[in-house]
Amino acid sequence: MELLEEHRCFEGRQQRWRHDSTVLNCAMTFSIFLPPTEEGAKPPVLFWLSGLTCNDENFTTKAGAQRIAAELGIALVMPDTSPRGEDVADDAGYDLGKGAGFYLNATEQPWASHYRMYDYVRDELPALIQAEFAVSDRCAISGHSMGGHGALIMALKNPGKFTSVSAFAPIVNPTHVPWGQKAFTHYLGNDAEKWQAWDSCALLLASNAEDAIPTLIDQGDADQFLAGQLQPAVFAEAARQKDWPLTLRIQPGYDHSYYFIASFIEDHLRFHAEHLFG
Amino acid sequence: MELLEEHRCFEGRQQRWRHDSTVLNCAMTFSIFLPPTEEGAKPPVLFWLSGLTCNDENFTTKAGAQRIAAELGIALVMPDTSPRGEDVADDAGYDLGKGAGFYLNATEQPWASHYRMYDYVRDELPALIQAEFAVSDRCAISGHSMGGHGALIMALKNPGKFTSVSAFAPIVNPTHVPWGQKAFTHYLGNDAEKWQAWDSCALLLASNAEDAIPTLIDQGDADQFLAGQLQPAVFAEAARQKDWPLTLRIQPGYDHSYYFIASFIEDHLRFHAEHLFG
Repeated sequence: MELLEEHRCFEGRQQRWRHDSTVLNCAMTFSIFLPPTEEGAKPPVLFWLSGLTCNDENFTTKAGAQRIAAELGIALVMPDTSPRGEDVADDAGYDLGKGAGFYLNATEQPWASHYRMYDYVRDELPALIQAEFAVSDRCAISGHSMGGHGALIMALKNPGKFTSVSAFAPIVNPTHVPWGQKAFTHYLGNDAEKWQAWDSCALLLASNAEDAIPTLIDQGDADQFLAGQLQPAVFAEAARQKDWPLTLRIQPGYDHSYYFIASFIEDHLRFHAEHLFG
Repeated sequence: MELLEEHRCFEGRQQRWRHDSTVLNCAMTFSIFLPPTEEGAKPPVLFWLSGLTCNDENFTTKAGAQRIAAELGIALVMPDTSPRGEDVADDAGYDLGKGAGFYLNATEQPWASHYRMYDYVRDELPALIQAEFAVSDRCAISGHSMGGHGALIMALKNPGKFTSVSAFAPIVNPTHVPWGQKAFTHYLGNDAEKWQAWDSCALLLASNAEDAIPTLIDQGDADQFLAGQLQPAVFAEAARQKDWPLTLRIQPGYDHSYYFIASFIEDHLRFHAEHLFG
């Protein structure tokens, strides 16, 4: 692992690292915020998954999360949104290929050899974080848009792994919206039955009651993608049917930008703290 | 004026505007944050001046200032750092020309026809803000690095205009450091006597006691530019001689980045609020 940057931030340490990912078969960069701690204390971890076109730095520089993470004593881990490098397949569209890994394991070529963000975020990166940093194994997960989809499927597919999950403007039902249909066709092939394993609404409807974890979703009602790509009401209806502990908040006037995330990230961190330390 | 962007942010409005500047003889972009207010209330204004290579968006996206400005009821105005456009003179260096206006009025060619950031920030932009937005005429000023220099000279050259001034890692003594000497030589010519009117240490030593205003400076001690370009101790010594109300805080471990600014911007906003509303 190579340390690319380190900055003192709210008495903690904001770092950026590069490492060779076995799962993704390329070099990857991630950011981490380590809060100030008492000697020997091991903070729990919140994984943050970013949206289309982002890398590890968008949330790191724009969300203002470090202030609250420092106060609460939570480490923040921000992975990139896709494999990277010259030999990694890409597409001219912003919503496919690099910057658009959709947190799944691709089965189709030319994607399958690198695009395994699900295994990377679920297994390889957490193991690396556990091995290299003084953090506890308690963790929660959150994300924005494509990363909100990522956070929800990670939580739903891995009962017991996360204490809580939250999302900002998540793509909850990718099998039914253009972003998801395009990505899933390329990454997973034309058999839409195989897509269901990566759709949080489908996963939620198939979930067991004992696996439910506290879930918070914020959605701006001035979000340009609300009607066409996001549709949180579909997830809310599935949660109602399953008696899943979801809080869905519609935030009047807010859009899809990091200004929206910055405005409500404090609530999300306090929500996760309640369960990480509970 | 043309509205380029608007985002809801902490219940206020984050906007980006383009307008034609008469003073700078080019189109200029600025950002403004308007806090939520009671009907008819006019918030005071904090002008923020950014550093080398920045534009109006660095502070806007990275500092996390809107949260506190919304709470306190302060409008934030973020101008660009130089004139812009294809017919504006530039230089290959990051510390001269576009992105490096140094908040002065250039007298030398090819700079003199556009580089009048002092007049722009002091007169044209505040008049525009007063005319176009529901804000009060109470104002304070702050900035980072080159913008910290800008904030200090604005305050020192214009007694009574600002209630208070603050800076992060300011270039306090540009006539004695490489950044300032390079810029002043190009913008103002070789006569170093003329540079004194744009040097906050020289201005402070020539100031009148009755013009003093509360001044806060934060400086990280891990700032790579501390010894070579910044030297806040020179300003502190001048303040001591003049009995100027300066608080200089050396922040252990902090560098020159926006992570440093984000960590302490709350203190600066609360400091200014005390005087803006005092």
